[in-house]
Amino acid sequence: MKKVLLASTILAFSAGVAAAEMSLTGGANMGVKYNDGVPAGDDELTIHYEVDFAIVGAGETDNGLSFGASLGVDEPEAGGVNDAEVFISGNFGTLTIGDVDPATDGFGIADIGFDGIGLDDVAEQYKNAASSADVNYSYSFGDFGVILSADSVTEDFGAAVTYSGGTWNVGLGYAELEATGEGTVSIEGGVSFGDFSGNAIYSDWDGGGEGYGIDVSYSGFGAIIVTAAFAGQDGVCIDAGACDEGYGIGASYDLGGGAALAGGIGEVDGDTRADFGITMAF
Amino acid sequence: MKKVLLASTILAFSAGVAAAEMSLTGGANMGVKYNDGVPAGDDELTIHYEVDFAIVGAGETDNGLSFGASLGVDEPEAGGVNDAEVFISGNFGTLTIGDVDPATDGFGIADIGFDGIGLDDVAEQYKNAASSADVNYSYSFGDFGVILSADSVTEDFGAAVTYSGGTWNVGLGYAELEATGEGTVSIEGGVSFGDFSGNAIYSDWDGGGEGYGIDVSYSGFGAIIVTAAFAGQDGVCIDAGACDEGYGIGASYDLGGGAALAGGIGEVDGDTRADFGITMAF
Amino acid sequence: MKKVLLASTILAFSAGVAAAEMSLTGGANMGVKYNDGVPAGDDELTIHYEVDFAIVGAGETDNGLSFGASLGVDEPEAGGVNDAEVFISGNFGTLTIGDVDPATDGFGIADIGFDGIGLDDVAEQYKNAASSADVNYSYSFGDFGVILSADSVTEDFGAAVTYSGGTWNVGLGYAELEATGEGTVSIEGGVSFGDFSGNAIYSDWDGGGEGYGIDVSYSGFGAIIVTAAFAGQDGVCIDAGACDEGYGIGASYDLGGGAALAGGIGEVDGDTRADFGITMAF
Repeated sequence: MKKVLLASTILAFSAGVAAAEMSLTGGANMGVKYNDGVPAGDDELTIHYEVDFAIVGAGETDNGLSFGASLGVDEPEAGGVNDAEVFISGNFGTLTIGDVDPATDGFGIADIGFDGIGLDDVAEQYKNAASSADVNYSYSFGDFGVILSADSVTEDFGAAVTYSGGTWNVGLGYAELEATGEGTVSIEGGVSFGDFSGNAIYSDWDGGGEGYGIDVSYSGFGAIIVTAAFAGQDGVCIDAGACDEGYGIGASYDLGGGAALAGGIGEVDGDTRADFGITMAF
Repeated sequence: MKKVLLASTILAFSAGVAAAEMSLTGGANMGVKYNDGVPAGDDELTIHYEVDFAIVGAGETDNGLSFGASLGVDEPEAGGVNDAEVFISGNFGTLTIGDVDPATDGFGIADIGFDGIGLDDVAEQYKNAASSADVNYSYSFGDFGVILSADSVTEDFGAAVTYSGGTWNVGLGYAELEATGEGTVSIEGGVSFGDFSGNAIYSDWDGGGEGYGIDVSYSGFGAIIVTAAFAGQDGVCIDAGACDEGYGIGASYDLGGGAALAGGIGEVDGDTRADFGITMAF
Repeated sequence: MKKVLLASTILAFSAGVAAAEMSLTGGANMGVKYNDGVPAGDDELTIHYEVDFAIVGAGETDNGLSFGASLGVDEPEAGGVNDAEVFISGNFGTLTIGDVDPATDGFGIADIGFDGIGLDDVAEQYKNAASSADVNYSYSFGDFGVILSADSVTEDFGAAVTYSGGTWNVGLGYAELEATGEGTVSIEGGVSFGDFSGNAIYSDWDGGGEGYGIDVSYSGFGAIIVTAAFAGQDGVCIDAGACDEGYGIGASYDLGGGAALAGGIGEVDGDTRADFGITMAF
């Protein structure tokens, strides 16, 4: 617990002070959200805001390996300091340890709105089989990508393979919750043609449920992107508020400089939900 | 909850990466505080320090709107991550959503000392009528300013109008706590003449109290500013430790580079209080 | 609680904006740890990672005093915002107030491994006599250094004197826990000769215990530093998991750019412990 322990670190630091550096990044949003399914007495129309910043350290070793670490600093949701991750990356791929996501977490469809009405959750509730992860390994070769994840404590695990062609991409993944042995196979696909683009996901959870969804976006209006999406779920619903089906339409207007105006309206789990606000990326 | 949701943000980010940026700001202080009114057995003389940093993101849209977000990162008081705010500003004024203050919170007089002995709290305890706010709108036209605030959950609200002449300023404001319907009308004024400047506040709370105070500062000694202040309160005292009256005198010496040496001594709520220390702005 | 209180700060800030600045610093590590002494059912081999960042403000007064403040932002250990410190430094020495360490905390020997197996804790458990501090004063004159510490609430205190010759250094210190009146005298020494360097510590706690330890490092292999260490403890053990004795050997390989690969293996408190991973300094 003392100075000499850090000798190697200090030595490395002295030698490499030029390469390693720290920075800030993040985003924020603010706007209004509507939900006619809130408990009686609660406001259907509410204000929403969130600030999601991150502190990032990054460096490169003498032989060209990238390494880094990051922390989230957020309020009011997931409030405080969170999402610590440490990674090292090279020809062998990228190994990340920390508060990482299961391999299949990147699968899914678009939500709509500035903050989202939760439409995509209907389709995506099974994709991770309620599993967690603290180790993530990703590797890409040409147009193929592989992601493996595991939780060293719970022994949950996940795997995904992706292929990205010029205008389309597909993915196949599996995630398993070790405590129950229940797992989910998911497939996803994406395509863009001219001003249109779209994504689809299908998940089959052997605990007794399946989720599916599709989104389509049109960017032919210049700075405005219009997105419509549909999601459905059969069997046991494991994400309260994201059961049955969801559909909606939204739009986003790029204000430039990192800001966008966005909003959407739809029906999710029997409730009408809408939001409208501004998103910011710094 | 997924990648495609962020499409608009990413797109906006790519387009505007040059404009939006993040930074750190903040201050700190350290020193000693004296209070002869502490409970028996507690130290009358104590050490005080605080670090109040903030992470800030700011940008500008293509058509000239300013936007941004910030988080406080503080210890040991208000410890942790706090005070999330998101704003957008343009010709229409500035709209801020988050952990904001009521419209009348800017009214008041000077405290004295490096950290403050709480003298001003005697006069200012009614100004916000114990209300809160999560939305703040401010607009200025010429020498006039308007601030409106509201709490979207409790429905508390506040409003203030200010006028700033060359060497003087006045303000009139109102704040209401919706739960009780009790509100406060406040007026404040400030003036500077040569090396002298001063401020005064008067608040009338219809819950049964009024607060008033005045401060005078003299900056004719060069780097030293001397401040004297008096505050009083009648009726129901709603801020324990800030009842009855307070008065005191203090001085601040500008060390340059962002640091100042400051101290003060006075009587507040029947107790003798003093402090002495250094303030830092980074 | 209001604007005018900050007049001196703002004034100082305006005058000195060029001198005071804020920055980020920190480190991280990730790897695996082994311990055959964990409770039955727990994993002997575990993943370890930590991100230890700090936000720092620093400035200089017009007459050359340095001042600053810092906060730790860490996860997952000591999670959140912590370790607030504020300091001012000049010819008179450095005065630091906040979440500081006792004067003797800098004494000790090397642990081994990327994160450490706790070997050094066996020798160092008495050095601070379980005391705490919120004020630290250090002063150096030539090759001599003096550190004084105190806790303004508990009235614990500590003192240390150090001397640093060209290739060797010695230190003598005392720490006392006011609640019990029990204190510890510690001596430490360090020496380097060619590619070898070493440190030793001996602590005598009048509560009924003594700790001692030694480390030796060899840096003649280029980027690799090899370290071996031994630590022992007699009398009442006050640090569970760091009783009896510990010994081990480890190595660190400087990857450049702020990163190092490090690992170690040893026996501590009857358990075999080892770790291997990467350390990063940003």
